[in-house]
Amino acid sequence: MRIAIDAMGGDHAPALIVKGALEAAAEWPETQLLLVGDSAQIEAHLGGFKPANITIIHADDVIGPDDEPVKAVRRKKGSSMVIAGQLVREGKAEAMLSAGNTGALMTTGLLVVGRIEGIERPALAPMLPTMDDVGVLALDLGANMDAKPEHLLQYGIMGSIFRTKIHGMANPRVGLLNVGTEDKKGNELSKAAYELLEAAPIHFVGNVEANGVLSRQCDVLVCDGFSGNIMLKAMEGTASFVMRAIRDAFMSTWLTKLAALVVRPKVSQLKAKMDYKEYGAALLLGVNGLVLKCHGSSDNKAVKNAVGKARTAIETELIQSIAAEISRK
Amino acid sequence: MRIAIDAMGGDHAPALIVKGALEAAAEWPETQLLLVGDSAQIEAHLGGFKPANITIIHADDVIGPDDEPVKAVRRKKGSSMVIAGQLVREGKAEAMLSAGNTGALMTTGLLVVGRIEGIERPALAPMLPTMDDVGVLALDLGANMDAKPEHLLQYGIMGSIFRTKIHGMANPRVGLLNVGTEDKKGNELSKAAYELLEAAPIHFVGNVEANGVLSRQCDVLVCDGFSGNIMLKAMEGTASFVMRAIRDAFMSTWLTKLAALVVRPKVSQLKAKMDYKEYGAALLLGVNGLVLKCHGSSDNKAVKNAVGKARTAIETELIQSIAAEISRK
Repeated sequence: MRIAIDAMGGDHAPALIVKGALEAAAEWPETQLLLVGDSAQIEAHLGGFKPANITIIHADDVIGPDDEPVKAVRRKKGSSMVIAGQLVREGKAEAMLSAGNTGALMTTGLLVVGRIEGIERPALAPMLPTMDDVGVLALDLGANMDAKPEHLLQYGIMGSIFRTKIHGMANPRVGLLNVGTEDKKGNELSKAAYELLEAAPIHFVGNVEANGVLSRQCDVLVCDGFSGNIMLKAMEGTASFVMRAIRDAFMSTWLTKLAALVVRPKVSQLKAKMDYKEYGAALLLGVNGLVLKCHGSSDNKAVKNAVGKARTAIETELIQSIAAEISRK
Repeated sequence: MRIAIDAMGGDHAPALIVKGALEAAAEWPETQLLLVGDSAQIEAHLGGFKPANITIIHADDVIGPDDEPVKAVRRKKGSSMVIAGQLVREGKAEAMLSAGNTGALMTTGLLVVGRIEGIERPALAPMLPTMDDVGVLALDLGANMDAKPEHLLQYGIMGSIFRTKIHGMANPRVGLLNVGTEDKKGNELSKAAYELLEAAPIHFVGNVEANGVLSRQCDVLVCDGFSGNIMLKAMEGTASFVMRAIRDAFMSTWLTKLAALVVRPKVSQLKAKMDYKEYGAALLLGVNGLVLKCHGSSDNKAVKNAVGKARTAIETELIQSIAAEISRK
């Protein structure tokens, strides 16, 4: 099993990406890790020690966080991200992961790795935190801005397979993000998608409101990229606002500072639970190979976890299952 | 100045609606309040005391919270909500307010009171809480599910006039809810609306993300009813989840319970700040008369505040200003 890692993408690249790769290489000695990036820099961070299951693949160029995605992927053929995508396309790696420019990674998935036949629009599918810590797989949260009902249907099918394969759920509940729970609610898109999802070979539980996500009223949340992204940012913004306000409340007097010491462990736990950045790598579902998006602020632990997730997806034949299900229709 | 009050709508109707009307009548003796509803019940709650500026207008029927909006408004001509709307339409009242069925109230605004000439779709425009307690006027948050770019343009104009007239803002900043702050971001609707808003005679500050609302990056937030409603519910859900988790954290040991006593006043303040229900009556902007939607859980204080808001809107000639601006185009 071979996993290509974009060593140059993310806030802590290449140092913590390489560190994470080393940890993953030690944990899973039978997994080949292909570290793609500036070989001199990668070697420097390896510190003279290169395990047998790490291979360095040199890349001259890097796609930066401010590069225009489509332009960057088309022009920077020698960038670490595009080369990692190329490895997946050519079958030299079963998966790639990157903490770099999100738009460029989605473009790499679409243009370099390529779509699964029959999938119209790939979707970015991260996990959203829930009260019970299990999480909801949400798709799409920003890859496809003007979704059609058929796209939402495919998201439901792909998400359902994901939770079965990756999380071992027997019968994942698929919900449609909407403004009310009644079946005739919503805009034209959501009403049309409702009918398609209801007829699909999945466990569709109907409409779910944004405030039902945290209580995990479904295991897979289907939405268009525009409203999904707005929901995500509203959740992130509100959570970080409330946490900050709580901190301010504790810092107001010496007595409250004392009280803060007592509840600090609990509040830190809550903060970690609500940290959308902590929730692991997101898969770009619908491309013909495994493409994992790690958060830009990923550290070595996040990189190692992403490698673990990629391994599970390879072992459970996620992509093959999606391709088989989509071609059946 | 005459304000019609639907005495029968809301969780605490008619008791606290009548109580709020009594408080408003005492505060503003020159304002005529028309209490619409079951006269026997209203009289019972008045307790034998009817101030000179309160008039009871009997209504046989009530629109319930589960009534299908359009059907209910069309069929229940004798309901308190429809009669209140009729009073506005006929010029017998300058404003109406109700804590009843939101959809039915919007339908009453549209079908009974009628639209301002040139306005295609009225919008429900509540205030959203912000960190600095000033709030953001958001429209539309659920009246119009499939908005067109022209509707969003009109929301921007109406919202700008609202904040100038009702809140005395000199040059309110109008923002467009979007998935990024760059000007080419978003879906087809938001991109087209961006161009129209940029050319409009308002202070347009561009795209605003959902997490920029709490830090008040704009004074008026323009959005379509679908994504706006999703943002609202994501904010409400996340805020109430975090507050509940904080409470649980405090209740875990006797030491944390002690700590809770110390910070309780601060946390209560924060809870009130984040309580979307507390944020006062929302106007239905774009109808040819003042229609105020009070939250279903409104108590006497909320009703009295809504009367105050209606008074300001009447005094500042909000509707006339919107009509004049829209007809200029």
